[in-house]
Amino acid sequence: MEIVIPRRTKEELRRKGSRRIPRTIQLSQGAGGSMMEALIENLIAKRLDIKSSFVGSGIDKLEDAGIIDLGDIKLAFTTDGCTVDPMFYPGGSLGSLSVGATINDLAVMGAKPIAISFGLILEEGLPLDILERTLDRMSEVCKESGVPIITGDTKVMEKGKVDKLIINTAGIGIIQGDIISDYGAQPGDKILVSGTMGDHGMSLVALRFGFQSNLRSDEAPLWHMMEQLLNIGGITSAKDATRGGFGPNINELARKSNVCFYVYEDKIPIKPEAKRLGEVLGIDPLSTACEGKIIMTVEPDKADEILETMRHHKYGKEAAIIGEVRRNPKGQVILETEVGGRKALHTSVGELHPRIC
Amino acid sequence: MEIVIPRRTKEELRRKGSRRIPRTIQLSQGAGGSMMEALIENLIAKRLDIKSSFVGSGIDKLEDAGIIDLGDIKLAFTTDGCTVDPMFYPGGSLGSLSVGATINDLAVMGAKPIAISFGLILEEGLPLDILERTLDRMSEVCKESGVPIITGDTKVMEKGKVDKLIINTAGIGIIQGDIISDYGAQPGDKILVSGTMGDHGMSLVALRFGFQSNLRSDEAPLWHMMEQLLNIGGITSAKDATRGGFGPNINELARKSNVCFYVYEDKIPIKPEAKRLGEVLGIDPLSTACEGKIIMTVEPDKADEILETMRHHKYGKEAAIIGEVRRNPKGQVILETEVGGRKALHTSVGELHPRIC
Repeated sequence: MEIVIPRRTKEELRRKGSRRIPRTIQLSQGAGGSMMEALIENLIAKRLDIKSSFVGSGIDKLEDAGIIDLGDIKLAFTTDGCTVDPMFYPGGSLGSLSVGATINDLAVMGAKPIAISFGLILEEGLPLDILERTLDRMSEVCKESGVPIITGDTKVMEKGKVDKLIINTAGIGIIQGDIISDYGAQPGDKILVSGTMGDHGMSLVALRFGFQSNLRSDEAPLWHMMEQLLNIGGITSAKDATRGGFGPNINELARKSNVCFYVYEDKIPIKPEAKRLGEVLGIDPLSTACEGKIIMTVEPDKADEILETMRHHKYGKEAAIIGEVRRNPKGQVILETEVGGRKALHTSVGELHPRIC
Repeated sequence: MEIVIPRRTKEELRRKGSRRIPRTIQLSQGAGGSMMEALIENLIAKRLDIKSSFVGSGIDKLEDAGIIDLGDIKLAFTTDGCTVDPMFYPGGSLGSLSVGATINDLAVMGAKPIAISFGLILEEGLPLDILERTLDRMSEVCKESGVPIITGDTKVMEKGKVDKLIINTAGIGIIQGDIISDYGAQPGDKILVSGTMGDHGMSLVALRFGFQSNLRSDEAPLWHMMEQLLNIGGITSAKDATRGGFGPNINELARKSNVCFYVYEDKIPIKPEAKRLGEVLGIDPLSTACEGKIIMTVEPDKADEILETMRHHKYGKEAAIIGEVRRNPKGQVILETEVGGRKALHTSVGELHPRIC
């Protein structure tokens, strides 16, 4: 089956070259869409691509983590900068988010997290109790995941030069078996998500707009669940659906693996409240961040066991098989609607919702 | 010989406990003095101290890097947050500084840097050419040191929520032989510095005050020089004299090693121009940052060879033996003046000079 739907492809962006990158930094370049991809791929990664025998997978691959090859041991190495407004919200906080994001970036590569670093940028005048509560949340998430924070850095900036508190984390993990890559999805694989999409983003949007809501961030450190899944095997690609949410991240997997992700729209788990709020505000839950959810492809004979194992884990209760990988149209995500129609799910260009981080 | 000089010791700070930490963040807590020590030791490190079998040296040790123990392989892991105003200055830039600082933190632990991560926090509206030039400087320093940047993260914040550009870097190194620790200086060791003290700080001060000056930042990635010194052996402790400069960093070595660092004041290399500028402005070049200098202790029979090797390296031409480690007074740095008098060199409490970063 061939479905050809024209869209702005990565190749087009590349052909148009750096003219597509505006000469001053735009908010949209940090929002997880194609504007951000263009900045990172065409400008940042190119300028920082340095060869070394230790590099198993470098910055040019734009994976969730780089791979360091030490012979018998392969390490995953990743980093995240975090800022959220507000810093504490239902279901999470800046502190837990910062550490969880790094643990999850390692987990989706198939790596057991073994060490985390933090870099704090503090604004002069920040109340100390905010710092204390933030550190406590960081510590809790690390303890839950059995990962030590072994090094750190603290800077204080003058009042007004930074907004309260920025946390950068970096993490090292040991690859347990095969590296799980964004490039590994194969035709025939099943597509799974580990739970409802868009909870983090939609809960923050509800908070910002003052809506009464039971929505909570889905923030969660996913290593322990991922460890169980790695023991089953058969995972061919995986990504945590963070910035930009489901849409940009599943598109990235399809594009990098050069296959079609064929998804049944009605099988994508979304909390009814998130869907309703999205309709009211015109925000698509599929284009807003998750902070504790994985999108993955799995060999077909392992899909049911992976699904059951996820559903037995506290962070995967609403996991679902949402579609399958097909050969064509390559690099595209096709949604089959409830009435049997088909549409392409595109990566957003810039921002689609109020900024939450 | 016993010299007892009362001073505000770490133990005193500790006894006074958290009452010494103000309830809002102060600029002085980021300046490299005892205010910063108290914040990091008594609040941050305590809350983030998590045990794991992989930890060879944890955050509680407050070394330049944490150590991950993988059995046959030991890794050093470090991180730095960087912000400098101005972003480009004689002898360096924010980009080169950010990467160099991380390379040096690994080098002084005795680790060969093998991978670096970056986290960019960009202010909306930042001119793209500033980002491009910054990335190019990062790349140059990495290439000089043979270290790849293998992973990164980019965030964009709204205009006014961050001052232009913050870079966080993290780095991984492989310990080459023995770990060089802050705790290893022994009575009888010689004390060396790899060149003139305070160049980075004094050059930025000159720039800020609009003084005509030939002063340049001493920014340099020191791995290749350190590699030569590690091959000679005999280094018992080492630290790069960054934030706070010579004073706080040599005090930290003395305190952690629980020995006396006995230093001949007239042997400490300082550029005459830095000294004169310091006199005019009342700023001590020994209390302002270096970004390419190491303070180290060396077994006495290796000191001359280490010194000669440094002096043959482009980053160590003005290296000097400045004193020796003695047994008492423990944890103190004693300066012998040109006329034979003695004074204790204390760690500054907060800031001693205009903020440069």
